[in-house]
Amino acid sequence: MVLEAIRYKPGSLQILNQLKLPHQEEYDEIHNSTDGWHAIKDMRTRGAPAIAIVAALSLAVELQNSEISDKADEVAAFVLEKLEYLVTSRPTAVNLADAARKLKKIVESAASANGSDGAAVSKAFCDAAAQMLIADVSDNQGIGKYGAEWISKQAGGGQVSVLTHCNTGSLATAGYGTALGVIRSLHANGSLKRAFCTETRPYNQGSRLTAFELVHDKIPATLITDSMASALLQLKGPSERIAAIVVGADRVAANGDTANKIGTYQLAITAKHHGVKFLVAAPRTTIDLQTKSGAGITIEERPGKEMTFIKGPRFDGVDIDVTQAETVSIAAKGIDVWNPAFDVTPAELIDGIITEIGVVEKGEDGKFDLTIAMEAHHEGIKPTTVGGL
Amino acid sequence: MVLEAIRYKPGSLQILNQLKLPHQEEYDEIHNSTDGWHAIKDMRTRGAPAIAIVAALSLAVELQNSEISDKADEVAAFVLEKLEYLVTSRPTAVNLADAARKLKKIVESAASANGSDGAAVSKAFCDAAAQMLIADVSDNQGIGKYGAEWISKQAGGGQVSVLTHCNTGSLATAGYGTALGVIRSLHANGSLKRAFCTETRPYNQGSRLTAFELVHDKIPATLITDSMASALLQLKGPSERIAAIVVGADRVAANGDTANKIGTYQLAITAKHHGVKFLVAAPRTTIDLQTKSGAGITIEERPGKEMTFIKGPRFDGVDIDVTQAETVSIAAKGIDVWNPAFDVTPAELIDGIITEIGVVEKGEDGKFDLTIAMEAHHEGIKPTTVGGL
Repeated sequence: MVLEAIRYKPGSLQILNQLKLPHQEEYDEIHNSTDGWHAIKDMRTRGAPAIAIVAALSLAVELQNSEISDKADEVAAFVLEKLEYLVTSRPTAVNLADAARKLKKIVESAASANGSDGAAVSKAFCDAAAQMLIADVSDNQGIGKYGAEWISKQAGGGQVSVLTHCNTGSLATAGYGTALGVIRSLHANGSLKRAFCTETRPYNQGSRLTAFELVHDKIPATLITDSMASALLQLKGPSERIAAIVVGADRVAANGDTANKIGTYQLAITAKHHGVKFLVAAPRTTIDLQTKSGAGITIEERPGKEMTFIKGPRFDGVDIDVTQAETVSIAAKGIDVWNPAFDVTPAELIDGIITEIGVVEKGEDGKFDLTIAMEAHHEGIKPTTVGGL
Repeated sequence: MVLEAIRYKPGSLQILNQLKLPHQEEYDEIHNSTDGWHAIKDMRTRGAPAIAIVAALSLAVELQNSEISDKADEVAAFVLEKLEYLVTSRPTAVNLADAARKLKKIVESAASANGSDGAAVSKAFCDAAAQMLIADVSDNQGIGKYGAEWISKQAGGGQVSVLTHCNTGSLATAGYGTALGVIRSLHANGSLKRAFCTETRPYNQGSRLTAFELVHDKIPATLITDSMASALLQLKGPSERIAAIVVGADRVAANGDTANKIGTYQLAITAKHHGVKFLVAAPRTTIDLQTKSGAGITIEERPGKEMTFIKGPRFDGVDIDVTQAETVSIAAKGIDVWNPAFDVTPAELIDGIITEIGVVEKGEDGKFDLTIAMEAHHEGIKPTTVGGL
């Protein structure tokens, strides 16, 4: 069964506690917006689309399980106050604030409709929140489908292998995943020989989260260090039929330049060197036509400690003690560290951008035209999706 | 002061205990061959040339500090027996056995000389052992000098920065280092702006050992993850004047194809992509004319545990407790792992091979001719040098 990080049905919400991954798979019950706030604050749920959706759904289950006022304006006021509160759980998460703004409009509109009552306002909100989850998963399934078809076609059919980077799966999105959605779709079609995933230093999203998802879904998969990608393509590219490297995106600029987890650019260079396709999988909400090129993207530099220390459950030589997390030092004291969180891969190294409505390829001029993809009809409230941390 | 992993003067031998690095800098006194045997067996000393030299010198100090027989054949028998014993400390270390064979010949020859006595045999052995240390350090200083000159000339003078991989310094050789010797030499000349070192997953020789050496020698240095090399060249290449990536070698084939620590090949690809020079620094003992090309080099695959577990001193959030090493799990349980220890960089990606007698460049046919370097006069007993673990 495909891993679900968010389990929702009207009146019930559970989230996979990501702090316990990959060693323990535990779902936490979220009863109300206070539970949702703490789950986001504590990072038990993470990934940009996921936190916006969990925030909205935590309030939805609270409304569904409470006795609410008959009066439309009282319910609207309650929802708006709770939305403001939920945004404070991760004040820097732009898409959480963005989703809250969109939901606020829906609630205000429902409250001001003729003959509206409390139940109608509540229903409008709950439907919109549920739609966010459905739309994000369905977008990712679209990405998976189009990406898998494109890769299979390019490879001339048969089973192929794919290398991915960082975590872009159910744990980083509302479900299914972007680049990992492409791998899931290939696997579901019987077209996947093997998935390879990098460990993705320094935060190890690959070895912790992607590897967890691949093992969970019983997808044949192999972990490598980031430094092994080139040796992999050189030594195993032909025998494993490695047809593509597929990554997510934090932001795609108008010309196709793509900001994504550090290490992505290096993978694109080695893909080019080995003649392997390099694909970016991202919903259209990640495409930012206001940013003309990668030159307009600022790279966040993070603390050196992320590289020089590492945390995990203690291993005594025989067993892993999942109850005892330790942090150990893995570098010489006093060394300077450069720790950029992202890098920018120039469009020239990218063969295709897989969106929920199809794969965007370059035109005859060798350039991406992303406006066409953006102009296609687009409905529903969807938070910005990121592929990364 | 330049880091010394082996401190020897007649009658006294100390080795830097590498098990305690990078967090503690402790020298162990080696009084005799038994101490030497244990230091090698316990991995307190490591690196192919280093273990051969420590084995020989441990026996030298034993001879220097004991009352020895007057009789040449008795001393020779004693030395040969001890050499056999020392080889058992790391039975798979080819160059330890190789050095023992060469030393055996010297001892046998000294013992059979006219008018030889115990003191003469002992002196012949001790001189040869001391010469191994001197020759290896002096070769590395030669590599450093020629490499630094070549890089400075190519860069048109001024201060330059260099990126290196794995550990090729005083901790992997008899002293000074190969690729790290080039960095030391640039620094000594005032020509080094900054050294960058990769952490070198999965065994982190870069973040543990190279970073330790750079901090120790007060060389301006910055640590990056292996995945950041390309972003480094893209974002900081021009401002930091990154003129070259310099690596060591485990084996250089006759055509210049180079086996070295995993990740080297990926660095060579990104160097090419960015127009940065890619250099291999290795003494001529590493060049193997019998191996025609990289196709003849078998890549060792190591246990996956090296990638999914990591060991280091415990960090409690404030202090590092150097007395308490912990091993933690850093990957999802059940994931398959591919862990090649080395990769092979094709000669076409290599701009020069820095040896102790000069930098070998390609001829007009675009190919390396390493026979010329090998034919130059070569004296003394030197163990094979490796750049790696």
